[in-house]
Amino acid sequence: MPADEEGQTPLGHRKSEDFNEWYNEVVERADLCDKRYPVKGLNIWTAHGWRTMTAIDSIIRKEMAESGHGEVCFPLLVPEDQFRKEEQHIKGFSDEVYWVTRAGGNDLDVRLLLRPTSETAMYPIFSLWVRSHADLPLKLFQIVNAFRFDTKQTRAFIRMREFHFFEAHTCHSDFEGAERQIQEDLHIMARLASRLGLGFLVFKRPDWDKFPGAFYSLAADTLLPDGRTLQIGTIHQYRENFARAYDIKYEAEGGEHRHVHQTTYGMSERLLGAVVAVHGDDGGVVLPPSIAPIQVVVVPILAKETREPVIAEADAIARELQKTGLRARLDNRDIRPGAKYYYWELRGVPLRIEIGPRDIKEGNVVLVRRDTRQKATVPRVGMMPEVRRMLDLMAMDMTARSVSMLKSGVRDIFSLDDEHADGILRAGWCGQDSCGHEMEDRLGAKLLGTLYEKAPYSGRCVVCEREASEQAHLARTY
Amino acid sequence: MPADEEGQTPLGHRKSEDFNEWYNEVVERADLCDKRYPVKGLNIWTAHGWRTMTAIDSIIRKEMAESGHGEVCFPLLVPEDQFRKEEQHIKGFSDEVYWVTRAGGNDLDVRLLLRPTSETAMYPIFSLWVRSHADLPLKLFQIVNAFRFDTKQTRAFIRMREFHFFEAHTCHSDFEGAERQIQEDLHIMARLASRLGLGFLVFKRPDWDKFPGAFYSLAADTLLPDGRTLQIGTIHQYRENFARAYDIKYEAEGGEHRHVHQTTYGMSERLLGAVVAVHGDDGGVVLPPSIAPIQVVVVPILAKETREPVIAEADAIARELQKTGLRARLDNRDIRPGAKYYYWELRGVPLRIEIGPRDIKEGNVVLVRRDTRQKATVPRVGMMPEVRRMLDLMAMDMTARSVSMLKSGVRDIFSLDDEHADGILRAGWCGQDSCGHEMEDRLGAKLLGTLYEKAPYSGRCVVCEREASEQAHLARTY
Repeated sequence: MPADEEGQTPLGHRKSEDFNEWYNEVVERADLCDKRYPVKGLNIWTAHGWRTMTAIDSIIRKEMAESGHGEVCFPLLVPEDQFRKEEQHIKGFSDEVYWVTRAGGNDLDVRLLLRPTSETAMYPIFSLWVRSHADLPLKLFQIVNAFRFDTKQTRAFIRMREFHFFEAHTCHSDFEGAERQIQEDLHIMARLASRLGLGFLVFKRPDWDKFPGAFYSLAADTLLPDGRTLQIGTIHQYRENFARAYDIKYEAEGGEHRHVHQTTYGMSERLLGAVVAVHGDDGGVVLPPSIAPIQVVVVPILAKETREPVIAEADAIARELQKTGLRARLDNRDIRPGAKYYYWELRGVPLRIEIGPRDIKEGNVVLVRRDTRQKATVPRVGMMPEVRRMLDLMAMDMTARSVSMLKSGVRDIFSLDDEHADGILRAGWCGQDSCGHEMEDRLGAKLLGTLYEKAPYSGRCVVCEREASEQAHLARTY
Repeated sequence: MPADEEGQTPLGHRKSEDFNEWYNEVVERADLCDKRYPVKGLNIWTAHGWRTMTAIDSIIRKEMAESGHGEVCFPLLVPEDQFRKEEQHIKGFSDEVYWVTRAGGNDLDVRLLLRPTSETAMYPIFSLWVRSHADLPLKLFQIVNAFRFDTKQTRAFIRMREFHFFEAHTCHSDFEGAERQIQEDLHIMARLASRLGLGFLVFKRPDWDKFPGAFYSLAADTLLPDGRTLQIGTIHQYRENFARAYDIKYEAEGGEHRHVHQTTYGMSERLLGAVVAVHGDDGGVVLPPSIAPIQVVVVPILAKETREPVIAEADAIARELQKTGLRARLDNRDIRPGAKYYYWELRGVPLRIEIGPRDIKEGNVVLVRRDTRQKATVPRVGMMPEVRRMLDLMAMDMTARSVSMLKSGVRDIFSLDDEHADGILRAGWCGQDSCGHEMEDRLGAKLLGTLYEKAPYSGRCVVCEREASEQAHLARTY
């Protein structure tokens, strides 16, 4: 409950004018987090923020259950010797880890690190759990706190040193099994993004940017309104890389022992960051109905002489909504309706229902969508299907707008001169690292990779002008 | 999935003969955790264990929602200077904390500790959140990982260095408000324990054993089969102690500034440890239906010629059960029924349904309760109410047995000679610390305190023989 809880002061920044400052302001003003914790990179999840985040977790958990993943929880602390087993992985993470060196008043014999991700905590145990082909595929996930001492500027939900982390880890008998897992992960990503109203593109990251220890890395990127992309999910094919380092073997049907093939799928509170950034407006956050802790708020319009019957009717509406399974709330606080509108708009409640003495007389209620602020007067009798319909429509429109923003944010370039990275630039690429790096340098952008589901392309590399059969995508990134 | 996953080997220890070893074996054999993580005091939650634990969390979350607590999530890492503000609290915890001293390759300027509990993380922020009487009561909770470097012998769910922790923190305008909160907490404790089938007693801990920084501490203790008690919940009245240290003040209606009064309510994975210890038997774990990840398992009895129709019928039964909202599973693995019985009994599934060719012919199914192993043949038509009834009955019986074990485990003593602490000993106590300590020393037991809801008592102190108006309760403890 930050100092501006009552929410009567308009946001100090406009999204279209200063996206960065708008974002930093809105996450706190919408009561999603409190940034005043006295350690850099660690924010506090307020009740509203945590309910929203865990609503996203619930969607993920449902997907995991339906795809046969078990939920586990591994320890946070990883002993240094386990961490040091996969060479590329160490290189990638050792500059980013927090070290526990003392406990109970003494120095520890073996230093412990806070998991930046859990390969090195899980895989020594996987080598005990996987013995025969009958144990495969092994499909597990956990949702936990993880830690990376990132030196870049921190930003709520987007770049935090302690973050809320989803990680799925799977073991398969062969490469093809792991590839099928990746297909499943991509379908889950698509369904989840659709529930969050987020357009995204899946890229195969260039080799120099893959996950430390991976054979290849796919990443789902969404485009934020300031023209920079945000990575919201990653899926990695490890092949046998980690299995060799951690000795994860199974006995095949023929009796021979083979290393497993592994994949991982990672997401985080960035999903919420993307929702805030993509859908929000100058009035605050706009939450998709799927994750809004309150989906419908009922605001009675009160006049002195009709106070009681209007509150009673508003209360009845809220209860009816709850009975149909909607997360609805009556706001009968003793403040003026305009202040309530403002308060709930700031927090992103998808639908508002207004009801006053005249509405009661005429047998109507007024529905107001958060995203478009569109109003509809509908008959009180039989209003429930209208409420559902409006929420569904809002969800679809949010996705459509995000997809369309993403599409219009992709632009072909045929030369590196006079170009600057705004949105996603698409350029012919011969596939050589050197040309890729030159694109990055000259555009001041990051090479996101090539589209995972790419259309056939034939053109020329924008750097060396050799024939190119694929297109690099570049953008400034978060 | 530990090495003995198939579960065909009987438990190596009997509960009645060697409770300790039985407990240590059953937690792994029932697939609740894996103890092979290479750091002492940190166990791995397997999928079955985590589903059971989070089912307990769900009961708690529902209680919290209904009593108006918001769920938050504070950072794990607490800066040393915040930790050092409440003198008693530091004394109590400073020997038990893990210290993060390095990050990103450098020593940290301010050392960070892993929360052993979150007073010192939350209260500097509460001083920002609480400003006026309108902000009170503030009722928050979180369910998080917490860390205590305990040097005593570790034990799964009961004494771990990383543990799954529930902590509620409330602020009130006065002492009476905080006292009312404690009443609410006690009611929640009672309802929760009843759902878990756990008898318990609430004690007011002696002053020398209260929570560091508390004005007084209440604790819910249950009795384990080996005659030792296990603390499964604590409720603390802080009065203004922490509010003074962390400057948490509000403006009262008259305009004056006052410190808030605070309470906390803590529980942990010990709730699961108690369930295992109290209800388990030589066949494995016995889970109360309220928290069993699988409440009913359907086992088809297969003969070659009738294989298909029996599986089809068993599948139909499982689906019908699921439709009524029960967590049911069909076990159609290709192993003999006896192995399946064993497997699910070990894991604590409350109810088994057996169905074979003869049952189908006769229009019956066989229900088997996990706790008593009692069998009932009931007509297939209209079996659903019978299933529900049997689960309800089992839940009630489990609670009744635990309550009765607790009651019969309390024994009055009138002298300290020739006594040994087995179960809970009740002795007249003048209330002086010195007499209490002498009881502890001579009995080799801990003074749990006096009953929170005590009957009038008049007798003599078992040590000094002065008049005593209360009874000390003593036990060996976990």
